[in-house]
Amino acid sequence: MDDATSTGPAAGDDPDLDLVLERIVSASPEDLWRGWTEPALLTRWFTPTPWVTVRAEVDPRPGGVFRTVVRSPEGEESDGSGCVLAAEPGRRFVWTNTLGPGFRPVELDDGDFPFTVELTFTPVEGGTRYRAVARHASAGTAAMHAEMGFHDGWGAALDQLLGVLTAD
Amino acid sequence: MDDATSTGPAAGDDPDLDLVLERIVSASPEDLWRGWTEPALLTRWFTPTPWVTVRAEVDPRPGGVFRTVVRSPEGEESDGSGCVLAAEPGRRFVWTNTLGPGFRPVELDDGDFPFTVELTFTPVEGGTRYRAVARHASAGTAAMHAEMGFHDGWGAALDQLLGVLTAD
Repeated sequence: MDDATSTGPAAGDDPDLDLVLERIVSASPEDLWRGWTEPALLTRWFTPTPWVTVRAEVDPRPGGVFRTVVRSPEGEESDGSGCVLAAEPGRRFVWTNTLGPGFRPVELDDGDFPFTVELTFTPVEGGTRYRAVARHASAGTAAMHAEMGFHDGWGAALDQLLGVLTAD
Repeated sequence: MDDATSTGPAAGDDPDLDLVLERIVSASPEDLWRGWTEPALLTRWFTPTPWVTVRAEVDPRPGGVFRTVVRSPEGEESDGSGCVLAAEPGRRFVWTNTLGPGFRPVELDDGDFPFTVELTFTPVEGGTRYRAVARHASAGTAAMHAEMGFHDGWGAALDQLLGVLTAD
């Protein structure tokens, strides 16, 4: 864990619909941006162990692909083709699983639910305020995502990302 | 009708998933942009008669709202809250019904299906090449949209838009 951990709504968030992970980390905004947008880095941290990310494809511009193929401990693979919505290098990265490349709508698999992730990397003394918000269409899917372990999972993945950035 | 009418796929389109309306019109790209992004104009043409658009809200920037409230001949209103994905004034306008303001996913009503609309306004001799592409997640929803009368409906709406621009 880094210096501080807090979760909660901020301006523009909806506490009934959004899940928030916010932490002050020692990595730079530029390195966090690289970790999210360079496939060779993304595959090393995106899924908390024992899950693994076997493939990633990222075109960090609006309409570009954000695709990850993840593998469960049982060896089952899941291919998620998402779309980049906003990309401000070193500052902000937004993507959704409801669209694919070129903003084309995606048919979600049974059991999947639509969400949008907004990441912001704000420079602060000694590092970065890392903020990940998952936005949902309904309180029901937000609650389901929370019960699936959003905070622990995204926190563990962030720890992995920080480990990858330190190792490099 | 204007000078030319053609429909069909172009580079980047998928003929199984996309419906295309393309016409050369005498209006300027700038006026067509205004017709799509200014609510006071949009409400005057967006729905082919006898349907009417009773309210519109447009914030033409990525993540901004694209909302229309339309009324059927029987008086039933339908509120569509969409999201702007790309906005290049006078040139290109992309929005989807799968997301709302701030890129938040939307729960579609029963019977509705996800789509993204990409409009391009290309200056040509004597006017503009107007191109509207509706992108779908599946061949099934694209076929359904076609059967609902996409080409006639969007063509009639375009005629109304040109009428509004000429009248102003």
